[in-house]
Amino acid sequence: MRIVALAGGIGGARFLQGLRAAVPEAELTVVVNTGDDITMYGLRICPDLDTVMYTLGNGIDTDRGWGRKEETFVVKDELAAYDVPTTWFGLGDRDLATHLVRRTMLDAGFPLSQVTAALCARWQPEATLLPMSDDRVETHVMVELDGTRKAIHFQEWWVKHRASLPALAIVAVGAEAATPAPGVLDAVDAADVVLLPPSNPVVSIGTILQVKGIREALRGKTVVGLSPIVGGSPVRGMADACLDAIDVETSAEAVGRHYGSELLDGWLVDTVDAGATVPGVEVRAVPLLMTDVQATAAMARAALELAGV
Amino acid sequence: MRIVALAGGIGGARFLQGLRAAVPEAELTVVVNTGDDITMYGLRICPDLDTVMYTLGNGIDTDRGWGRKEETFVVKDELAAYDVPTTWFGLGDRDLATHLVRRTMLDAGFPLSQVTAALCARWQPEATLLPMSDDRVETHVMVELDGTRKAIHFQEWWVKHRASLPALAIVAVGAEAATPAPGVLDAVDAADVVLLPPSNPVVSIGTILQVKGIREALRGKTVVGLSPIVGGSPVRGMADACLDAIDVETSAEAVGRHYGSELLDGWLVDTVDAGATVPGVEVRAVPLLMTDVQATAAMARAALELAGV
Repeated sequence: MRIVALAGGIGGARFLQGLRAAVPEAELTVVVNTGDDITMYGLRICPDLDTVMYTLGNGIDTDRGWGRKEETFVVKDELAAYDVPTTWFGLGDRDLATHLVRRTMLDAGFPLSQVTAALCARWQPEATLLPMSDDRVETHVMVELDGTRKAIHFQEWWVKHRASLPALAIVAVGAEAATPAPGVLDAVDAADVVLLPPSNPVVSIGTILQVKGIREALRGKTVVGLSPIVGGSPVRGMADACLDAIDVETSAEAVGRHYGSELLDGWLVDTVDAGATVPGVEVRAVPLLMTDVQATAAMARAALELAGV
Repeated sequence: MRIVALAGGIGGARFLQGLRAAVPEAELTVVVNTGDDITMYGLRICPDLDTVMYTLGNGIDTDRGWGRKEETFVVKDELAAYDVPTTWFGLGDRDLATHLVRRTMLDAGFPLSQVTAALCARWQPEATLLPMSDDRVETHVMVELDGTRKAIHFQEWWVKHRASLPALAIVAVGAEAATPAPGVLDAVDAADVVLLPPSNPVVSIGTILQVKGIREALRGKTVVGLSPIVGGSPVRGMADACLDAIDVETSAEAVGRHYGSELLDGWLVDTVDAGATVPGVEVRAVPLLMTDVQATAAMARAALELAGV
């Protein structure tokens, strides 16, 4: 079985872990959001790609859900001693090596997709990880800060401000002009099913869908999504703050309707959201809390079942 | 008293520590070699500037003579796990923060001299540290490697090969076109004395002297040098391998004659080298081993005395 999944960071990575456990024999390609990528200290940091890579490669800090296990923060403390203004970003020492290798390869002219493949040679995620695009896409959030409207990088909004400033708009800068990374459209074309894990529907899945040609490629494919909203709250993260920005209610039904029947064939919601309907889409209710790999594998099995594969 | 010193890394930095102890009230400007600078992992690493800054700022690892005290190497070990080919370079975690700040400022358009000033705001070296130039200069060494002649970066020759491959030529790429950093010529102009610490006469002092206008600015100034060679051997480092490349004998007398009376007014050699002569230059013999700060301060006092200041 060939599966393509679109994914953001922590939520997507956890789901993929369950999916791998559910169907270890499946050929899995993960198309990862890069709109959260940020350049800091000259390094190119790809939080979602790294979270998926570390998670599937057993290098993740399972408590935080991001970054490396057994992480140390010597460099971060030293940066603070230099009084740099960006110490809100949790740059770990082990993690930093990944960014240094990536910087070296990007400087040598390799596209992000090849850099990702090279990094995965170490981590062996047992899946093909593809950035959604080799082109630079960066999600910016329009906020009111100190009395003036200003666009800040998604990471600054998400990590520094903990998404507490109302998002007046969320724009994936460069997405419209970006083309899918090599392998993305071929993988979708060959897929028996495309899964949308319970990632952020705005800044993760939504951003991937903005890349030219990806939404079109999904037409005619069997697509099943899993709701990131359970009982009116995000399972994790602050997806509600992003949904507010695009005027979508924070509910499993509203997110399903936001994706719509043009994209979805099936929509999995949690049992507390049983009764949700999405016109033209088969909605099924199963437990959607990723409490452990077994529970997550059951979710993945339910999604594949709903897809009929 | 206004003093300008030209300096390389470890030897220069140790001498400057003694100089500061000898004349704490003096206004000291250090013009530092940047020919050893190297770009690695996209970072700009300035070994000599950092060694002088850490040494005078009490952040140096005094055993090694370079890098930060209480250093850790988490990132370096992680880079090795990625199987990168450049792990011969001793990149410490604490040290890395300096390079990240430098990268950020260079990317923002600040010249190296301003970056250095910003870094020194933390380290307070009680001296003005100036790169010899804001322009990129990189020393390359021509060697025979696997049967073919090839130019490798100075650091690769010095650190990876421990200067064991014969240097067929040493070229400071970019030096002829480089202009002195802001403040260098003014400091020389205002100086009561210019000191050449016992730094490497080829790849440290020699490179600084190749920057357009610096050698000319030293004419008419009182210049006193200290021999880096004692009893036919470098006090530290592998200066002999560099001297071989320019056909200069590894002796205090030969290095003094290599600098010559056009540059030097006085030349301090160790007592074991008493009897050395340099035509047109006053040669004096004093103990030249930098065993501790007191001994080094005595060397500095002898140099200032020879200069008549």
